[in-house]
Amino acid sequence: MIAPANRPIGVFDSGVGGLTVVRALMERLPMENIVYFGDTARVPYGVKSRATIEHFTAQIVDFLLGHEVKALVVACNTIAAVAGHKVRHSAGGMPVLDVIAAGAQAALAQSRNHHIGVIATSTTVNANAYARAIHAQNPQARIVSQACPLLVPLVEEGWLDHDVTRLTVREYLKPLLADPIDTLVLGCTHYPLLKPLLKQEAPHITLVDSATTTAEAAARALGAAGLLNSDNPAPDYRFYVSDIPLRFQTIGERFLGRSLEQIEMMSLG
Amino acid sequence: MIAPANRPIGVFDSGVGGLTVVRALMERLPMENIVYFGDTARVPYGVKSRATIEHFTAQIVDFLLGHEVKALVVACNTIAAVAGHKVRHSAGGMPVLDVIAAGAQAALAQSRNHHIGVIATSTTVNANAYARAIHAQNPQARIVSQACPLLVPLVEEGWLDHDVTRLTVREYLKPLLADPIDTLVLGCTHYPLLKPLLKQEAPHITLVDSATTTAEAAARALGAAGLLNSDNPAPDYRFYVSDIPLRFQTIGERFLGRSLEQIEMMSLG
Repeated sequence: MIAPANRPIGVFDSGVGGLTVVRALMERLPMENIVYFGDTARVPYGVKSRATIEHFTAQIVDFLLGHEVKALVVACNTIAAVAGHKVRHSAGGMPVLDVIAAGAQAALAQSRNHHIGVIATSTTVNANAYARAIHAQNPQARIVSQACPLLVPLVEEGWLDHDVTRLTVREYLKPLLADPIDTLVLGCTHYPLLKPLLKQEAPHITLVDSATTTAEAAARALGAAGLLNSDNPAPDYRFYVSDIPLRFQTIGERFLGRSLEQIEMMSLG
Repeated sequence: MIAPANRPIGVFDSGVGGLTVVRALMERLPMENIVYFGDTARVPYGVKSRATIEHFTAQIVDFLLGHEVKALVVACNTIAAVAGHKVRHSAGGMPVLDVIAAGAQAALAQSRNHHIGVIATSTTVNANAYARAIHAQNPQARIVSQACPLLVPLVEEGWLDHDVTRLTVREYLKPLLADPIDTLVLGCTHYPLLKPLLKQEAPHITLVDSATTTAEAAARALGAAGLLNSDNPAPDYRFYVSDIPLRFQTIGERFLGRSLEQIEMMSLG
C-alpha cells in the first residue's frame, strides 16, 4: 500500500492546455508525482454542451481515481465552470483544486479597485463562472467578461507574437479596457503563452495567470491536509491522452516548457 | 419497403461545415430526401490522428446505413482524406461521393495551366489527399498546398469580412500566390463562406468550391445508377448531431443558408 502523501496528484484538461498547470505544479511542488489526462480525441470542450462536458468529465475522473490520486486538479476552465461540482462530488473528501476558484481568489487579492476583467472561452464566459466565484467572496466586485474563441487556435498555430494575434487581442480587449479594470484574469490554460503580448497591449493591467495561482492553491491545500510529498527527489510524471494527433509533441512541449516523455494513449469513449 | 430512389442521401461531417454541402445538394437536387449527421461532440477531426478519425467515421457510417440511405456523401475533407477508402468499403456497392474527389475533378476541369493551389486543414494537407486525387487523373499537374488551421475558427466566430481574417488569409495565401497557380481549391467545407474575401485577395484565381462540385458529382452518380428521385416535391430533411452546443443554431443556419429544423441529438460514443 502506498503512503497517502506518496500518491500522485491527478491533473486533467480537455487537451494540452492543462500542461501549463502541470508546469506550474512541477515548479512550485518539485517533489510531487503527477498523473495527467488530456482528452485530445474530443478537444475542445469550450464549444460543447453542459451534458456532454459532464459525461466526458465523469469518465476522466474515474480514470484518475483508478490511479489512486491523492488530489485532483481541474486544469481546464470549461470543465471547472460546467462540471466542477460533479468532480468534487465524485472525489469524496480529497482536495480538489480548480483553475477558476484559484484564479478568482488571486484576482481579488491583486485588484485594488475590485474592477476585474476576464477573458475565456465562450462556454466559460456563458457559464458566468468567474463572476460567480468572485462574487461569492466579494459581492461588490465588478466583473466584465469577454469570450475569445480565436485565442486557442492562435496559440496552437504558434502565432504568439504575430500581427494577426495582436489585432485579435486588441479587438477582444477593447470592451474590457473601456471599463476601468486594473486586473485581467487569463481564464483559459492556453492564454499564459500570450502573456508577453497581453502585457504589451494592456501595460497597466495586472495579469492573473490561473496556472501559477492553481499551483499555489494546490500547495496550500495539500499542506493543510498533511498530504505534501517531502521526500521524493525524482518524481514520476505520467501523461495520458485520448489521442496523439499531429504536432502533439511540439505543441505539448511548448505548453510544458520541457520535453514530453512517457506519453501513453488511453481511449475513454 | 421503400423504393430505392425514394431513400434518402446520407451526408456527414465532423461538425456543421458539411451543411454547405447539404445546401448545395438542396439547390442542385431539390427532390431528394437527405439525412445529415454532424459529429459536433467530437469536432474538429482536422487535428486528430488517423486511427481516431477512422474509428469515429465507422460509427457514423453505421448510423447512416441504419437509415437505409441510397448514397453516402462524405462532406468533410478530413474524413475523405483519411478514411474515404473505409467508407467505400463499408458502403458496399452504393454511390459514395466525397468532397476531395469532386474538388480534384473540378479543379482539373477549370485550370488552364494545371497549376493548382489547395487550402485545407492540417490533416487534409498532411494526408496529401488533393495532390493524390489530382495526380491520379493528371500526373503532370503541379499542386501547392497550404494548411490554414485558423480559418475554421474565424468562420465560426463570424468574422467573414474582418481585418483579422483578411490578414490571416493574406498570410496563408502568400506562398500559394508566389507560384503561378490559376485555380484554388477550397479544401474545407467551412471555406465557401470566405469566398467573397478570397475573391478580393486573389482576384485572378478561379475558386473551386467543393460543396457545389460535390452536389454536381452526386447528381451525375445518382443519375448513372438510376437512383434519382424525380417525384418528391416536399423532401424530408433530417439533421442529427452528437451535441447541440452553444450557438449551434446560429452557426448552422449561416452554413445552410436557411432555417435549421428537425435537429435531433444522437450520441455515438
